Amino acid sequence: MQINPRCDQLPDSPGAAPYSPRSRRILSFLCVVLSVFASPGLANSQPTVEQWGIFDLTLKGPTNGNPFLNAPFSAQFTFDYADSAATDVAGFYDGDGVYRVRFMPPTPGPWHYVTRSRISELDHKSGQFTVAKPSSQNHGPVHVTNTFHFAYADGKPFKQLGTTCYAWIHQTSALEEQTLKTLASSPFNKIRFCIFPKRYDWNTNEPLLYPFEGTPPRDWDFSRFNPKFFHHLEKRIADLRDLGIEADLILFHPYDEGHWGFDRMTSAQDDRYLRYVLSRLAAYRNVWWSLANEYDFMKEKRDEDFERFGQIVSTSDPYHHLLSIHNGKQLFNHTRPWITHASIQNGSAVEDPARAVLYRDAYRKPVVFDEVKYEGNIPKRWGNLSAEELVFRFWQGTIAGTYVGHGETYLHPSDILWWSKGGVLRGQSPPRLTFLRQVLEDSPVEGIEPIDKWQNPEYGGQRGKYYLVYLGKSQPTSWEFKLPRPPQGKSALEDGMKFTAEVLDTWHMTVTAVPEFFTLKKKTDYFYGDINDRKIELPGRPYIAIRIKRFEQ
Amino acid sequence: MQINPRCDQLPDSPGAAPYSPRSRRILSFLCVVLSVFASPGLANSQPTVEQWGIFDLTLKGPTNGNPFLNAPFSAQFTFDYADSAATDVAGFYDGDGVYRVRFMPPTPGPWHYVTRSRISELDHKSGQFTVAKPSSQNHGPVHVTNTFHFAYADGKPFKQLGTTCYAWIHQTSALEEQTLKTLASSPFNKIRFCIFPKRYDWNTNEPLLYPFEGTPPRDWDFSRFNPKFFHHLEKRIADLRDLGIEADLILFHPYDEGHWGFDRMTSAQDDRYLRYVLSRLAAYRNVWWSLANEYDFMKEKRDEDFERFGQIVSTSDPYHHLLSIHNGKQLFNHTRPWITHASIQNGSAVEDPARAVLYRDAYRKPVVFDEVKYEGNIPKRWGNLSAEELVFRFWQGTIAGTYVGHGETYLHPSDILWWSKGGVLRGQSPPRLTFLRQVLEDSPVEGIEPIDKWQNPEYGGQRGKYYLVYLGKSQPTSWEFKLPRPPQGKSALEDGMKFTAEVLDTWHMTVTAVPEFFTLKKKTDYFYGDINDRKIELPGRPYIAIRIKRFEQ
Repeated sequence: MQINPRCDQLPDSPGAAPYSPRSRRILSFLCVVLSVFASPGLANSQPTVEQWGIFDLTLKGPTNGNPFLNAPFSAQFTFDYADSAATDVAGFYDGDGVYRVRFMPPTPGPWHYVTRSRISELDHKSGQFTVAKPSSQNHGPVHVTNTFHFAYADGKPFKQLGTTCYAWIHQTSALEEQTLKTLASSPFNKIRFCIFPKRYDWNTNEPLLYPFEGTPPRDWDFSRFNPKFFHHLEKRIADLRDLGIEADLILFHPYDEGHWGFDRMTSAQDDRYLRYVLSRLAAYRNVWWSLANEYDFMKEKRDEDFERFGQIVSTSDPYHHLLSIHNGKQLFNHTRPWITHASIQNGSAVEDPARAVLYRDAYRKPVVFDEVKYEGNIPKRWGNLSAEELVFRFWQGTIAGTYVGHGETYLHPSDILWWSKGGVLRGQSPPRLTFLRQVLEDSPVEGIEPIDKWQNPEYGGQRGKYYLVYLGKSQPTSWEFKLPRPPQGKSALEDGMKFTAEVLDTWHMTVTAVPEFFTLKKKTDYFYGDINDRKIELPGRPYIAIRIKRFEQ
Repeated sequence: MQINPRCDQLPDSPGAAPYSPRSRRILSFLCVVLSVFASPGLANSQPTVEQWGIFDLTLKGPTNGNPFLNAPFSAQFTFDYADSAATDVAGFYDGDGVYRVRFMPPTPGPWHYVTRSRISELDHKSGQFTVAKPSSQNHGPVHVTNTFHFAYADGKPFKQLGTTCYAWIHQTSALEEQTLKTLASSPFNKIRFCIFPKRYDWNTNEPLLYPFEGTPPRDWDFSRFNPKFFHHLEKRIADLRDLGIEADLILFHPYDEGHWGFDRMTSAQDDRYLRYVLSRLAAYRNVWWSLANEYDFMKEKRDEDFERFGQIVSTSDPYHHLLSIHNGKQLFNHTRPWITHASIQNGSAVEDPARAVLYRDAYRKPVVFDEVKYEGNIPKRWGNLSAEELVFRFWQGTIAGTYVGHGETYLHPSDILWWSKGGVLRGQSPPRLTFLRQVLEDSPVEGIEPIDKWQNPEYGGQRGKYYLVYLGKSQPTSWEFKLPRPPQGKSALEDGMKFTAEVLDTWHMTVTAVPEFFTLKKKTDYFYGDINDRKIELPGRPYIAIRIKRFEQ
C-alpha cells in the first residue's frame, strides 16, 4: 500500500520522448501501487477488484498549505468494452501527503483510469485494472425497484428491516465490536447512524474522535478534516458491509445544539463537508445517504439548505446511492426528484395498514417508516412501546407495502441504550423480527403490495399469487377463506384456482400449514371464496397472519 | 345591454384628429355600453360595479370566418389609485358578433380599462368605472389561509362543507331549479360538478345543451363553442353565487368514454377549451377549478397533460382561484406549485383522524377529502355508507384539520340520484352536517388544527383556546377532563387556566353545557387535567364530541 517514490511523477517535460496516451497509461500504471480492498496482495500482475468492490488509487502529493482546500483532483474511469461513458470520481486528501480516489466498478471486465489535477504530481496518472465477478455475499448496492421496493444491483430483492444506533461509532472499541457481534445475529439488514457525534439524554459522553482538526469541544478548523476519524468510520462501514448490512449514514442532525457546533457550520463548510464525505464513502456499496435526522428540528438550517444538500449529494455521488431525509414533526417534500425513497418518522402511521399506505400514494416511491417509536421503558412517550406493539407495527407496515425500522430504548445502569450506543439487544421484538424477515425473504420478489387498500387493508401481497392477511390485535378462532377482487385493474382471480394456506403466529413464531387446498369460487363482485365455503381454524390469539399461496400443478 | 351601432368603432385613421390616450379613453367609454351584472340599469352616469362583482364589457365585432379562433382580444384593467399593476384579462366571442371581456375588480375605487386586439373594431376601446364596496353577502373569492385552511377575500373564514352533483346542470330546468332550492336550505357551501355532460350508471340521458357546435352525439366542431351552453352554465354559477355556494368546476372527466369524445380531444382542442372557459368564467368570484375528476381514470390523458392544464389555468386566471385535481386510485402530485389545495378521493382516510392528518404533512396545503364514499344504497361499495358513517367521517376529517365532501346515492325510480343529477336530498346526513356547519362557524377563525397528532388524534382545535374532542364510535358514560400538552412547540397551557365544556351529540344534534368551569393543573409531562380531577358525564351513546373553550374573565 505504498507509493514508489521514484515513480510518482511521470516524465512530462517538452523535451522528453513523447508518450502516446496508451503508453502513458501503461507507464503510469506501472508506477502506481494500487490498494484494492477486495483483492489485497497484488504484486506485478494487473490489479483485480471485484464488481461493486472498491478500487482505491493512492498517490503521493504536496503537504504544504491546506491540501484539503488546495489540492483537488479526480479520476476518470472507463470501461474498456462497449461505448460506455467515462465516470468522473472526485479524489480526496487523506493526510500525510496521501491522496486517494476510490471507485466502485459496476461492470466486470477491463477498466482504465486517468487522473486530473492542477497539481502535476496528481495529474495524468493512469492505469488499467480488471474487475472480476463479485464474491458470493456481494450483491452490489441497493436501489429502488417496482416503484415501492428495493433490490440489490444483481437483482436480489432487498427487504428492508432496519434498526437505529445513532452514535454507535462514537463509542469504545469494545462496545463497537459488541454492537457488530449483536448485529451479526440480528434480523437487521440496515442500520441508521450519525457521522457527527450526538449529545442527548443518556448519551453525553464525548466521542473518541472528531471529524475536524481542532480542540474539543468547540475550537475547530472546519477547513481541515481529521483522517483518523474517517478511517475509523470507513472501517465500521466496511464491517457492516461484511455482515451484509446497509449503512444508512445520517449526514446532519440536531443533537448538538452548539456543543460542538457541527449543526451550525456555514453553508460553505457544510457543502465542503458533504463533498469530502461523498468522495471518501460513495465507493462503499452498502452506503445510503440520509441528509439529516429530524431535519426540521435543526434550528440553524432551512428547507433551502437541505434542498442544496440534496442537489450536492445527488450530483456528487457517481453511483446514485439511495438518498432521503428524515423528519421530526414536519415531512420534507419527498416528491423532490433527488429523493429516492421517503424516510419517515411517524409515531402512529403504522398502527394501521390503511394509514401506512397513504404515503405511498402521495410519493410513489418506497416508504420506509424509519422511526415508529421504540421498544423500551424510558419516560418518553416515543420510547416505551411494548415488544408486541413494535412487532405489530412492523406487520402493519409490511402488509401496506411499506418498510419499518426498529429501535430499542431500555434504561441501562451505564446508559447503554441500543438506540443510541448499540451494545446488546435486550428486547423481545428482535426474534419476532427475525421471523418476519424469514417471511419477507419467502415473499414475492416484486414486493408486497396492498391488495385492496380502501376496503380490505389487512391483505398484502401480489394479486393472484401470494397473500399475507394480518389480523393484528383481533383474536378470532376461525377465518373464512376469501380473496378480494378489486374492481379496478385485473382481478387475477378465476373460479377453480387453487391456493394453499398457512397460519403464522407472528408472536410465537410458528407456521402451521392448513391441510388441503382451497379452490376459488366467485362469491360477490368484490370477493372470491372457497368452493366449499371452508374456514381456517385459528388459535384465538392476537398477532396471527394467514399466508396464502397460489398452487400451480 | 346593447351596443350603440354608431359608436362601436372609434375614428382611428391616420388623417383623423389625434386623440390623446385620455381623450380616447373618454370617447371610448361614451361609446361603449356596459353590461354590469351587479349594477344593472346604468344610463349616462359612470358605471358602477361592486367589489368582486363582474364588470362585463360588450363590444360588437366581426362575424366572418371563425371568430372563436380568429378574433382574440383582451383588456387591460387599471386601478386609478396607487401604483398598482394593470391586470390583463382575455376576452371571448359570445356568438352573433358579440365580444365580451369580464373583470372581477378586487379593490373599490376608480378603475379604467383599454382593450387590445388586432381587429380594429375591438382595439383600443377604453373607459372608466367605479367599484363600490361589496354588498353584504359578497365576501369575495375564497383563497388559502393559515397553510391548511380557507378564507374569503374579505377575511371571513370559509369552512368548507361540500357536496357533489356531477351532472346537475345537464338536467331539465325544473330539476335544476329543484336542486337549487334544495341547496338553499342545505348545509353545503361548495358543490362539485362537471362542465361536460356525464355518461355513467343511472345517468345516461343526453344533456339539453352541448359545449360545442355540431350534431350529437359525436359530430362536433371543436373549434366553435356553443354560447347557449355557456350562458346556461353561467346562469347556474351565478345562481350558486347568490346562494353563497362555491362552484367547484370540473374541467375534464372520464365518464364519456368516447360517447361524445370530450374526453379525447386533441391537445390543441383541450387547451383552447380551457382558455375559453377561463375567459368566460374566471370573473365569477365563486369559481374553483378542478382540472379533472378521477384524472387517473382518463385513459387518453397522461400526467403531463394535466401538468400542462394546470399551468394554463394557473397562468390564465387573473384572480388565481383555487385550483386542484381530483383522483381515482392514484393521487396527483399535490406538491406542484400551481395546486392550491389537495382535492382527494380516498375511501378510507377519514375513518380515523390519524389517517386523515397524514396528507396535511405531505402537502402543507389545505386537504379536502372531496370523495370519501357516499351515503346511499346502490350496489357499489363506494355508494352505500350509512348516514351515521358519513357524518362520522366528516367529524374525523374535521378534527384532523381537513375538510370533507358529501354525496348521496339512494336508488330512485327515475334514476334521480343526488350525486349525479341533484333534485332533493333523501338521506339522514344533511341535518347532521348542518349541525356540524354550526359548530364550524363557531370554531376559531384560524381553523381547526390537530392538537397532538400522533398520540391523541381525537383532539382538534387551537391550543390553549379551543378544543373539539371527538369520541367517534365509542360510547363512554364519562370522560376525564384533560388537555394534551405536546412537548414540541409551545404548550399554551398553564396551571389555573379556566375552561368551559359542552357535550355535543353530533347525531341527535344537541349541545349540553357542563356546569362550572374546569381549572387546569399539570398532571404529567404530556397532560393537564382539572384541579379536582373532574370528569364529564356522557350519555353512553356513540358520536359524542366535547367542545372545550378557554374562559377568560
